Amino acid sequence: MTTDLAIAQRATLRPIADVAATLGLGSDDIIPYGHHKAKLAPHVTGERDGKLILVTAISPTPAGEGKTTTTIGLADALRTVGADAMACLREPSLGPCFGVKGGATGGGYAQVLPMEDINLHFTGDFHAITSAHNLLSAMIDNHLHWGNAVGLDVGRIAWRRVLDMNDRALRDIVVGLGGRKNGVTREAGFDITVASEVMAILCLATGVEDLKARLSRIVVGERADGTLVRAADIDASGAMTALLAEAIRPNIVQTLEGTPVFIHGGPFANIAHGCNSVIATNAALRLADYVVTEAGFGADLGAEKFFNIKCRKAGLVPSAAVVVATVRALKMHGGVPRGELGSENVAAVRAGAANLLRHVENVQRFGVPVTVAINRFTADTEAELAAVAEAVSGLGVKAILCEHWAKGGEGAADLAREVLRLTESEGQFHFTYPDALPLWDKIEAVAKSIYRAGEVAAAPGVRAKLDAWEAAGFGELPVCMAKTQSSFSADPTRLGAPENFTLPIRDVRLSAGAGFVVALTGELMTMPGLPRHPAAERIDVVDGRIEGLF
Amino acid sequence: MTTDLAIAQRATLRPIADVAATLGLGSDDIIPYGHHKAKLAPHVTGERDGKLILVTAISPTPAGEGKTTTTIGLADALRTVGADAMACLREPSLGPCFGVKGGATGGGYAQVLPMEDINLHFTGDFHAITSAHNLLSAMIDNHLHWGNAVGLDVGRIAWRRVLDMNDRALRDIVVGLGGRKNGVTREAGFDITVASEVMAILCLATGVEDLKARLSRIVVGERADGTLVRAADIDASGAMTALLAEAIRPNIVQTLEGTPVFIHGGPFANIAHGCNSVIATNAALRLADYVVTEAGFGADLGAEKFFNIKCRKAGLVPSAAVVVATVRALKMHGGVPRGELGSENVAAVRAGAANLLRHVENVQRFGVPVTVAINRFTADTEAELAAVAEAVSGLGVKAILCEHWAKGGEGAADLAREVLRLTESEGQFHFTYPDALPLWDKIEAVAKSIYRAGEVAAAPGVRAKLDAWEAAGFGELPVCMAKTQSSFSADPTRLGAPENFTLPIRDVRLSAGAGFVVALTGELMTMPGLPRHPAAERIDVVDGRIEGLF
Repeated sequence: MTTDLAIAQRATLRPIADVAATLGLGSDDIIPYGHHKAKLAPHVTGERDGKLILVTAISPTPAGEGKTTTTIGLADALRTVGADAMACLREPSLGPCFGVKGGATGGGYAQVLPMEDINLHFTGDFHAITSAHNLLSAMIDNHLHWGNAVGLDVGRIAWRRVLDMNDRALRDIVVGLGGRKNGVTREAGFDITVASEVMAILCLATGVEDLKARLSRIVVGERADGTLVRAADIDASGAMTALLAEAIRPNIVQTLEGTPVFIHGGPFANIAHGCNSVIATNAALRLADYVVTEAGFGADLGAEKFFNIKCRKAGLVPSAAVVVATVRALKMHGGVPRGELGSENVAAVRAGAANLLRHVENVQRFGVPVTVAINRFTADTEAELAAVAEAVSGLGVKAILCEHWAKGGEGAADLAREVLRLTESEGQFHFTYPDALPLWDKIEAVAKSIYRAGEVAAAPGVRAKLDAWEAAGFGELPVCMAKTQSSFSADPTRLGAPENFTLPIRDVRLSAGAGFVVALTGELMTMPGLPRHPAAERIDVVDGRIEGLF
Repeated sequence: MTTDLAIAQRATLRPIADVAATLGLGSDDIIPYGHHKAKLAPHVTGERDGKLILVTAISPTPAGEGKTTTTIGLADALRTVGADAMACLREPSLGPCFGVKGGATGGGYAQVLPMEDINLHFTGDFHAITSAHNLLSAMIDNHLHWGNAVGLDVGRIAWRRVLDMNDRALRDIVVGLGGRKNGVTREAGFDITVASEVMAILCLATGVEDLKARLSRIVVGERADGTLVRAADIDASGAMTALLAEAIRPNIVQTLEGTPVFIHGGPFANIAHGCNSVIATNAALRLADYVVTEAGFGADLGAEKFFNIKCRKAGLVPSAAVVVATVRALKMHGGVPRGELGSENVAAVRAGAANLLRHVENVQRFGVPVTVAINRFTADTEAELAAVAEAVSGLGVKAILCEHWAKGGEGAADLAREVLRLTESEGQFHFTYPDALPLWDKIEAVAKSIYRAGEVAAAPGVRAKLDAWEAAGFGELPVCMAKTQSSFSADPTRLGAPENFTLPIRDVRLSAGAGFVVALTGELMTMPGLPRHPAAERIDVVDGRIEGLF
């Protein structure tokens, strides 16, 4: 089998200036990073009024859905059928690249290039975020060391450190050992960079000034009296902004078919909102007629946050949505174990389609026109495919077979045509809740309307925290749900379409800089570990070429 | 007073392709990073056979010497007098930028540009080094977590983690807390990225294959039986090489006067050798007739390691050296406190010149033609300047007044002419010791011949370690002395030219990947802290411009 890396390395890339020219950009409108990557210059303001198309998915299973691949394939397909389209994606994290997952630049003939660059350091955005985050961390510990003038309670410091690395040994650490000269001894820890609030801030900021204002609002901890200490109190936000001055500009690359793509930012889809940057999406909508973007995890998390957080805060109105599913994944939702996905099982597809239907219905509740993309695998049978189409037809929605993985844009031309048709309709986009709703009620609204929980149960202290934040002026913020991506419920083993369960809210966190309140429904993993045999063991450079990245 | 940043921001930069064209490079020979930075493409092989000029200095004092500024000024001056010259510098570290020191891109009218970029993320080399270093760290702890098949002794792990940040709280930490799922609990710590052996390796490697081989040889710790465990045993070196594949290419920028400069790599000058990369120096010597470079700290450390480590390993033969001094600094070596440097004191200059003479004589011992550059300050008097000239004339050396800080290349034209004259003479370059000398004898050779120690005293265990490494095949390595930069002795308060002191060797470390044995003469600071009011507090972005960097 030809690997993704082999396809990518065989491709002839267009010079990035040519790709930018597709968007009407001149050579002064981009800042080159090598011959095949660039950043958008800050002065660029396009003239278009593009339509925004969200690619989301069913609840993820180990069988795979191919959301990023479909986003890329759809952008290529739109150009194939004559529409002026581009894509907006998230940047991959270095950590998982060396762990299990490999890269995140699509697959088969629906890839973004240069694959190795994008998966490794790219244009340095994540490194800049790591630096800005850790500068604040160092300044906090330095502040403690020099007398703690702002009166931070050492036991209530919320700000951790970050690395773009899967490193479980750094989750819980003690810093400041070795005597007084090494600062104040305290418990601390590292998260992976994509979990940094700085990442979420960069992705929600509308420009440099807004970025700086958001950074200054970051809550780093509390005083003994419960009052909040912010990054501005430590005088860190100016220097953090300087570190992010280049990172805030969208990165331009291309698909295998030469379609322009912005890849910019990549916040976690659990404790953050899981979408590429607002700056990139806004710029794309001014430079192309159709902008295809994606959101993390399934539609219950990714699409919900894309709509309720990103679109709300950035004033975006999505024109259509695509829910990606595979027959294999629906079979898993229908109860088939991973080892038995190869044989036909129409009944399981029908049962598992309940998960798909729930997601489609949820998107419809936002008033966004929607279609289903079946990312085709060779083992899928006609009867299984027909079962999916039949299931969604009851919601007035088409299930469209896509073969972009094997055929590139041509393989998703039908999907492109259906999406174009949907964007012609007058949508009635609206949110799940208004800004003015109390924080707890916002959590309940998402839990009941999107997840179909029967009840929402707050752990002790949760309601009091929310009340305190409302009193402190944070009541207008949207909520960001941190829930397992594997189920509508908080129990990752409950596949399909569970309902009337109790959703536990174990804790809440304030991301005052990003501008949302995080509701945690379970244990949250913000620093992954490496597997017994990490992918890094197989990555190499041979004759100047990188091998083993996939 | 006009700040360095203001001068830098007022400058009109040439497009980097034009700067590269000065070196005979076409647009395909460089990889642009923005419009004013680039990396050298891997295929470039120049035709020249350039002469290498080292800029070194007296023992540093708080009064300042201006070694980087003189390196830049001399390169500009050589072009001013018609020579085809360029400079090779080290990359600045981000950490000190936010601490006390500010940036490291020269000053006044002898600067490299773009100043903000070079001082902040530049082309991402240090971030790549941080990632490669920490990938190995994560793989070590992951290896312990999954059963420790290679049998690493948890108490004898030498490999730490790094961040490009001044963060004292990370010097001594405990990792792997919070239960078995978070790995093995053990003592660990972070160094600043410039202290990473990966940095030293990148700077001594001759190409990608050599880089990978060196990375695989890194000793990460020992087994209980004392045998060494290497990065190759953890299968990390291939992925580390992939992370460094771009970082290994030299970066091209320009001076205020448009002179091409390679800025590449920046290892510590104590536990490492303190010079820019061999790859950059080699490339420069093929692209220009005269290459001006610098080495860290004073000549006892910087020049000694440049000659005995870098030149030895890379087969370089320096054609001339410049020892930079200031009248102010010589007065401090002559016993004048910092607050009284403003008034004339010819006797103190004469006394302090002993430090300068010692360094000049040391350079002569390597058989390298040498001159002295007096980096002029406005308060210097004619009598003081004459005293310096008189002092060095006994060694057959000129002391040349330089005003590049105020006047750019024109201000160092006399120095350029003297350097050109020196490079015409037949040098007799040789090392302080041969490869075959036992490790301890190499340490003694440097201590006695360069530092003028009367005696060298090994702490318990030091000799046994050296013997064991010789038995293991490391006897041919050069030694890398980690000593205070403030004195020829290990006591930073002994300025001037002390002699017949006892030099203590407290510990030795094996940098098997970089290829040297480190001898520690005192407490070593490998992770700086921030001051009470770090420079970061004053750094800001206002109207899209970075302020407060200097």
